[in-house]
Amino acid sequence: MKKYFYADLSTEKIRELCARSGIDVSKIEKIVHEIETNISKNGDDEIRNLTEKFDGVRLENFAVSQKDFENASNLIDENFKTAIKIAAKNIRKFHEKSADKNISAKIETTTGVECWRESRAIETVGLYIPGGTAPLFSTILMTAIPAQIAGVSKIILCTPPNKKFEQTGFVAPEILWTAKFLELEFENIFRIGGAQAIFSMADGTAQIPKVDKIFGPGNAFVMAAKSAVSPRVAIDMPAGPSEVLIVADQNSNAEFVAADALSQLEHGPDSQTVLIIFGKNSEKKSDEILNKIFDQNEKLPRREIAKKSLKNSFILIAENFDDAIEFSNIYAPEHLILNIKNADKILSKIKNVGSVFVGENACESFGDYASGTNHILPTSGFAKSFSGVSVNSFLKKITFQKVSNLGLKNLGPTVEILADREDLFAHKNAISIRLKNLKK
Amino acid sequence: MKKYFYADLSTEKIRELCARSGIDVSKIEKIVHEIETNISKNGDDEIRNLTEKFDGVRLENFAVSQKDFENASNLIDENFKTAIKIAAKNIRKFHEKSADKNISAKIETTTGVECWRESRAIETVGLYIPGGTAPLFSTILMTAIPAQIAGVSKIILCTPPNKKFEQTGFVAPEILWTAKFLELEFENIFRIGGAQAIFSMADGTAQIPKVDKIFGPGNAFVMAAKSAVSPRVAIDMPAGPSEVLIVADQNSNAEFVAADALSQLEHGPDSQTVLIIFGKNSEKKSDEILNKIFDQNEKLPRREIAKKSLKNSFILIAENFDDAIEFSNIYAPEHLILNIKNADKILSKIKNVGSVFVGENACESFGDYASGTNHILPTSGFAKSFSGVSVNSFLKKITFQKVSNLGLKNLGPTVEILADREDLFAHKNAISIRLKNLKK
Repeated sequence: MKKYFYADLSTEKIRELCARSGIDVSKIEKIVHEIETNISKNGDDEIRNLTEKFDGVRLENFAVSQKDFENASNLIDENFKTAIKIAAKNIRKFHEKSADKNISAKIETTTGVECWRESRAIETVGLYIPGGTAPLFSTILMTAIPAQIAGVSKIILCTPPNKKFEQTGFVAPEILWTAKFLELEFENIFRIGGAQAIFSMADGTAQIPKVDKIFGPGNAFVMAAKSAVSPRVAIDMPAGPSEVLIVADQNSNAEFVAADALSQLEHGPDSQTVLIIFGKNSEKKSDEILNKIFDQNEKLPRREIAKKSLKNSFILIAENFDDAIEFSNIYAPEHLILNIKNADKILSKIKNVGSVFVGENACESFGDYASGTNHILPTSGFAKSFSGVSVNSFLKKITFQKVSNLGLKNLGPTVEILADREDLFAHKNAISIRLKNLKK
Repeated sequence: MKKYFYADLSTEKIRELCARSGIDVSKIEKIVHEIETNISKNGDDEIRNLTEKFDGVRLENFAVSQKDFENASNLIDENFKTAIKIAAKNIRKFHEKSADKNISAKIETTTGVECWRESRAIETVGLYIPGGTAPLFSTILMTAIPAQIAGVSKIILCTPPNKKFEQTGFVAPEILWTAKFLELEFENIFRIGGAQAIFSMADGTAQIPKVDKIFGPGNAFVMAAKSAVSPRVAIDMPAGPSEVLIVADQNSNAEFVAADALSQLEHGPDSQTVLIIFGKNSEKKSDEILNKIFDQNEKLPRREIAKKSLKNSFILIAENFDDAIEFSNIYAPEHLILNIKNADKILSKIKNVGSVFVGENACESFGDYASGTNHILPTSGFAKSFSGVSVNSFLKKITFQKVSNLGLKNLGPTVEILADREDLFAHKNAISIRLKNLKK
């Protein structure tokens, strides 16, 4: 892990540190484009071939069978079921209670002119749930629950099949049980992964329904496919490798900071951890943390991944908290952990971030699984302009307006002047003709 | 205008009627891509060349001068100023009062685990204001006002220069005065149009600051450029030609319906109007409306444009209101005018639309200029998954969480189980290490 001193960094160097390593998509884009073209030509046949090629299973019907769906419950232990139930309860509670009002007040902007706003659910959404290596059942909670709160009427789920789970039709029982627990329908769960899943949901095939918006994380192929269909089809957000920025000082528990760094680094070789240590004894503290990272990592099964991702990671020594947060706002991390005392008091300084973990107990794992906040968050600096997934992500807001005769008289002449100056005389005429009729 | 009977339409035919004509972007995409490549290579020099080529003016500095900015006021009459002030007041009032709360309540999802959500403004936004033919000053109101309510700290505005306005530095005085009235800064108003404006704001050049999100309508080149930079740079929404769907019955005022149809048709040759007449005597009514359209159009300066866009437009005869609204929900229009009695009572049936005009007085011109609602709305069926511009469009929502010792004890073990089942042992360890420390 390289170490930098914030006070010494040039604007150019800060920009360089904030640029994520990313992925070379030029090669992937070509493959992904080919997949898109072939699916649009050959539909389900092509998906069948790709699934055989990438996932090692040839499937006639992509949907999960009712038998496999029901059977998953028998392969899952009660501890897991209880944990999912607790996580689901918290996620539902937070998303419901933090949701915006569905109908605004009626606002009389001019006497006789009333405007308001109402929300409507997006009708059909597609969820992508990774499951190639570990089955990411937690992502089902993070997408299906806000979709249901919003009132989405049709939820499609795609997840790659995996030979390991032959006894439940090539889908991990944890995924099937979680979907069943959330009352998703087995006919809408499709065993398709990768770019092919994204393109089938974007355009629809004989077996896969076309959706209005696509949600969920995935590997580089999935991301490239989501970028390719956007903005033609709405997506939750662009995505890159996961990342965390941890702010600590001399009083922070080095064991905790190290554990949090590693919980990010184990995601994949392209993950990134940024450590900012500020104030007195910060260099000493950073060495202490670094040693704990090496120690703890030796006992972890994914230590080889973490060793690779450590190379993308760096330590920043800052003079004070303001400098630390200034860098964080430029970097715009997906996750920000404030492992410091009295963190509450400075939250208004935080501008660009996906989700914030306040104080030494709030490790990222809480938000990843069960505290209630969403774990689909903007990476790669997208936190400057995008929000994490919320109930809002599954809604459209529609505006309404109503104009009484008085409103027409009061505001009509203003509209006539403005339409006239934009040379849009038919726009003006739509008012004039009504004003004339009023005088009759 | 072709006429169809809704009851006779196959699913296939409905899909065909809902597919917008659109634009053949394949040719445009190539040109736009070339512009992108050249700007990234030659920066402001390339923009200078393109501006000379497309707008007929060679500019050293793209920013508006203070002198021109101040001078605009002298070239504008008081009627226009008053009209802008009224429109701005209404737009501000509606956007402020319909905005969501910036901070949610603190939600205790598990005892000791507190989650909440706070909004932050996007820091720098770019507004594109068309001005090649008519200067669309109204779009400044529709973008800058919600940006200011959100608290955006830097607003960049690009608008194409036009030789016609030499006395104010090649920008229409209406645009300059509106910008000045809204307290935008002249140093941030750039005389650049087309795809080149979008690419300069997306990546920044020596003269043009890089922005976090791009807003505003434009011609096919502007749209293609916005699609090209998305999702790398956030945009308000994808866009296509403007459109209206008008629902009427035998009691509707045919003059009004015709005027509203024409106010959409005059936008451009690719605009579309869909008329749905339902119930008794609907065929007779549709003929009456069609005749009024021809009559009124003869007196309009943009009649040749309307004649072309009439060819993209069609009439649908429906048996009842439910059928009419069923089609409207599939079509997902940008604007929906309900020129019927008691329209209030059926608004819950409307699912996919940008903005709704309720009752015979509420013509689209009101929303285009001054009622208070936003006129940047999803076209081409995007109303199924996108909302019009609002204060929300200029905000990110950040989630926060805080965990007490009790919260750690209560929820920690749940997170351990879930992390374990996703094979993420460092995630689990971040909890275990804290739980162990608690017991000390």
